[in-house]
Amino acid sequence: MRKEYTAEIISIGTELLLGQITNTDARDIAQRLARIGINVLYTTEVGDNPERLARCIEIAKERVDIIITTAGLGPTVDDLTKVLLARSFGLELVMDEKEKQGLYDYITNEGYSEEMSRNNLQQAMLPEGCTVFHNYWGTAPGCAFQKDGKVVLMFPGPPKECIPMFDRYGIPYLKQFSDEEIFSHEIRVFGTSESAMDFMLRDLMKDLTNPSMAPYAKEADCFLRVTAKAKSEEEAEAMMKPVIEKAVEILGDNVYGFDISCVEERVFQLMGEQKKTFATAESCTGGDIARRFTDMSGASEFYVGGAVTYTDDVKAKVLGIDPELIREHTAVSEPVARAMAENIRRITGADYAVSTTGLAGPDGDGIHEVGTVFCGLAMEGRTEVIELHLGANRTRDYIRRCAGNFCFDMLRRAMTGLPMMNITEQN
Amino acid sequence: MRKEYTAEIISIGTELLLGQITNTDARDIAQRLARIGINVLYTTEVGDNPERLARCIEIAKERVDIIITTAGLGPTVDDLTKVLLARSFGLELVMDEKEKQGLYDYITNEGYSEEMSRNNLQQAMLPEGCTVFHNYWGTAPGCAFQKDGKVVLMFPGPPKECIPMFDRYGIPYLKQFSDEEIFSHEIRVFGTSESAMDFMLRDLMKDLTNPSMAPYAKEADCFLRVTAKAKSEEEAEAMMKPVIEKAVEILGDNVYGFDISCVEERVFQLMGEQKKTFATAESCTGGDIARRFTDMSGASEFYVGGAVTYTDDVKAKVLGIDPELIREHTAVSEPVARAMAENIRRITGADYAVSTTGLAGPDGDGIHEVGTVFCGLAMEGRTEVIELHLGANRTRDYIRRCAGNFCFDMLRRAMTGLPMMNITEQN
Repeated sequence: MRKEYTAEIISIGTELLLGQITNTDARDIAQRLARIGINVLYTTEVGDNPERLARCIEIAKERVDIIITTAGLGPTVDDLTKVLLARSFGLELVMDEKEKQGLYDYITNEGYSEEMSRNNLQQAMLPEGCTVFHNYWGTAPGCAFQKDGKVVLMFPGPPKECIPMFDRYGIPYLKQFSDEEIFSHEIRVFGTSESAMDFMLRDLMKDLTNPSMAPYAKEADCFLRVTAKAKSEEEAEAMMKPVIEKAVEILGDNVYGFDISCVEERVFQLMGEQKKTFATAESCTGGDIARRFTDMSGASEFYVGGAVTYTDDVKAKVLGIDPELIREHTAVSEPVARAMAENIRRITGADYAVSTTGLAGPDGDGIHEVGTVFCGLAMEGRTEVIELHLGANRTRDYIRRCAGNFCFDMLRRAMTGLPMMNITEQN
Repeated sequence: MRKEYTAEIISIGTELLLGQITNTDARDIAQRLARIGINVLYTTEVGDNPERLARCIEIAKERVDIIITTAGLGPTVDDLTKVLLARSFGLELVMDEKEKQGLYDYITNEGYSEEMSRNNLQQAMLPEGCTVFHNYWGTAPGCAFQKDGKVVLMFPGPPKECIPMFDRYGIPYLKQFSDEEIFSHEIRVFGTSESAMDFMLRDLMKDLTNPSMAPYAKEADCFLRVTAKAKSEEEAEAMMKPVIEKAVEILGDNVYGFDISCVEERVFQLMGEQKKTFATAESCTGGDIARRFTDMSGASEFYVGGAVTYTDDVKAKVLGIDPELIREHTAVSEPVARAMAENIRRITGADYAVSTTGLAGPDGDGIHEVGTVFCGLAMEGRTEVIELHLGANRTRDYIRRCAGNFCFDMLRRAMTGLPMMNITEQN
């Protein structure tokens, strides 16, 4: 059996210790290391302080094989990472002529002062014999070296530089220390809670080790991740296929897609496949359904537009909702949701139209409980309305997000010939 | 001079090391410690592994005064934090009868099995003599103790439990180790970049140490944080006042508010003060302006609704925009933005109406550059339109967000009697 390499990620910067920025670098690198089969045992954050950083390096050398640092490669006096790592491993810093030339061109372009220029050129001083990682996304190069049985990789701190560089250089460099990779698929599920999914799949999951399967939840949405450790993608796919099929069989039509990130993405796919259009009439979601769909580029091919009708008056003026209907049933009602969807569909001429009317809270209307939402879906020859009770103790954000998810899921179900979800069973 | 206490935050959980979750606990605790004048020197993440966690505890004991842990207090075998910390300090774990009763009531309610019940009651085993932090947000209590000159605090991992508990118990407990607190104000600025702000304020900032001042940028928005270290809030306020006044004088009417988080929040305040209403007609922002405003609870008092008109046809049908106007000027034009704002204002009867029409990209229309957006503002007796060129290399998200910010800023300026921003100067 081959040695299993262990790693520590050291992130450097006083702003991390003040909580001013979130350390997404360590998280994103850890994710990637997991995928290539390298075990991260520790991550550490330390400030721009030479003694403390030097101690962290010594601790990491004792407890892991691979040390990965983020930040501290820039041109200012605070940037100590290379100096301290080189010193710890008894290496000299030497000027990399190629990097120096690149920096020189940059400095000349920017018209820097003499002092700034001198500081900037320091970025080309790298540990002797290292592998240089040229930074196409910023100025400070990264690097890697191996010494005394340890592996060291350094990356700049800004996530927009660090992560592309890790993907371009770090992963290929580190693959030599792992002979297995991790592959995964996500099965996206709407309409069951994480715990319900866990319950339904318990028997299937309990004996699985490779591939493994785990449920995850996001607000009002969940997914199942199936992961296989294998020597090749082909082998991994073959291992995952029967497990995925079994899970899909159990979860039934609550499965809305694979390897996508949200239910609107599935609606986007279906609209494209079927060349359909849709419109929206939103009350409590306040434009969030339109915004979510139009966040995806290319949305204008399928989404024609709609209305945000926050008051009864605007429901009447923009959507032509009969004020009598509202007086009789209140604005938060099945007939109003139905009329909103039907009217915006008629006005815009879209193939489908969804609507929401409800109470996102935290204030109530004295009639309905906060979290009560009616979602409508109008299409050729048929209109569906579902009544949701999303919970009076839920946040405004959750209720709006969740109501939007139900609308997209109604669209997805209608477009794939599935019945609407039986909400009574869910609540 | 009093001793300056140092701290380390240890976050426990294998899912952190797999990059599956973001460690917001450490960041949020670090932020709060900075405010009460306690220096965080390190943060560490370690998995649910007893040997490695025990080593991390020994390292922390050697290098800091205060150890704060997050996670590992739950009912499963993985939850080792209390056991290992108690062992390291030679303390016994003893059953806390009050916590046990609370857990017992909870377990009985949930109808747990005997095994689950036994495991759950383990959560009431706490280090002898500790201060118990009752968990109103979940089940696992936290705690604190002092021994051998060290201070230890433990909190559960889920951010919705950890942070409220830190605020309720952690901060009051830790204030005894600091005699200075940090107070700050944020000056919110729209219409200058972070580097422009830095340039304008350089002379003012360069000699400031306490209070200090620093510029920060978010997408298409920036702010200035003024921070004072003092023994009382009153003293801090007196130190910050002249500096804030000077900064506001320099930044002029680009300052849109204090200690708020976005320009729509300022619009919300103004709408409330002046008892006004507004409506929206959005094309390229796709409902995002409506969504952002209605994210704030109470928005229904001021926001009446609007339209999302993604196609020319819907612009005609919902807003009554003359197709001839679009043919003549294209949809992305000053006259169309003007008509959109004026028409939605007339239809809804709102006091103000804003509109957007532009190209959020990444695909262009063959006529305008991506990032071209016209923002309209209609009000009694007057309509304003500004033309933005937000940059063809910018992301769709940025362009949509930024266009929305300009609309809210136009509203803010109109409502406070300021002239519209001179965009030619900005671009």
